Amino acid sequence: MYYAAPVAILIDELTKLPGIGPKSAQRLAFYLLKISPENAKDLADAIMNVKDKIGFCNVCFNITEGDMCELCCDFDRDDSLICVVEEPRDIIAIEKTSSFKGRYHVLGGAISPIDGIGPDDLKIRELLDRLKDEKVKEIVIATNPNIEGEATAMYLAKLVKPLGVKVTRIASGLPVGGDLEYADEVTLGKALEGRREM
Amino acid sequence: MYYAAPVAILIDELTKLPGIGPKSAQRLAFYLLKISPENAKDLADAIMNVKDKIGFCNVCFNITEGDMCELCCDFDRDDSLICVVEEPRDIIAIEKTSSFKGRYHVLGGAISPIDGIGPDDLKIRELLDRLKDEKVKEIVIATNPNIEGEATAMYLAKLVKPLGVKVTRIASGLPVGGDLEYADEVTLGKALEGRREM
Repeated sequence: MYYAAPVAILIDELTKLPGIGPKSAQRLAFYLLKISPENAKDLADAIMNVKDKIGFCNVCFNITEGDMCELCCDFDRDDSLICVVEEPRDIIAIEKTSSFKGRYHVLGGAISPIDGIGPDDLKIRELLDRLKDEKVKEIVIATNPNIEGEATAMYLAKLVKPLGVKVTRIASGLPVGGDLEYADEVTLGKALEGRREM
Repeated sequence: MYYAAPVAILIDELTKLPGIGPKSAQRLAFYLLKISPENAKDLADAIMNVKDKIGFCNVCFNITEGDMCELCCDFDRDDSLICVVEEPRDIIAIEKTSSFKGRYHVLGGAISPIDGIGPDDLKIRELLDRLKDEKVKEIVIATNPNIEGEATAMYLAKLVKPLGVKVTRIASGLPVGGDLEYADEVTLGKALEGRREM
């Protein structure tokens, strides 16, 4: 027994979403079949609306409704500091900490030869263009602390240092509230390596 | 920092989906922002299409493109046997086994006082109407083997038995390929209780 074509197409489309396998897609599809047409339309409209209205900031490549994002438009932020992240969602995470008041730059991913993503696929040239502006004194590389993120950080450091701009990397170490006993060796090693005087 | 309105609305809509929490919704939203407008439109269209074209079978309440589902239209199936399930997706699961050639009846859920679902919210009256047809000799209750499913099965058995129709329940026991050592007590108890002569 097969699904009717519209159901099969919906399951197929849902399976393309990240973290949604065939089983989850089937569950979501049946849920969508069950809810009212109005509620389903709200979701479909929200998807189309976001594609219509949201684009990328001309300066930092964060998501934005206009040409420039609110963070790039904010005159109170420190122009001498740029935090480099992989994705727009990383900006949200950093903004939630309230510990950074500089500018941002979204690369749009990390260097990953396995996935066929090289430096040219990221907004690295655009970052270098921004650094030509003498105001920038430091870039904080906040790519993820995994293989791809580290490789990207190293690649950027090599490119940016010769321009006379200070390059820093966010600290790796034990999560706050974590337990030494349960930390993996690599994290614990990084925590020791990055120890600071009290 | 807050999300732009269209992004916030999309995250809100995605959070309504079953099994999608705020973090997953955010990840999905950023994914949808990243893909091409055509691909996003394919998903939105698939959602609307399924609501436009798919309804419920007049007889068994399975999902269908027409008035009657393909299983109710199939003359080769056994009219004397009706398998009662909670949801249309359960039909797919049973059809995959190829061990049932009767008809189906979808209740649209299970009795669950906590969720405010009583017998009147399910297609029970419609099932009783179908049983008035003298052809039906047995109903196989295949609701889920959890509290709500068992309660529903017992409620149905009490209603249907007086009509002179045989009522059976799918077996509970150890999953094939499972391990006695790791089975929970209730399942193992059910497996012993339902033992069959070899």
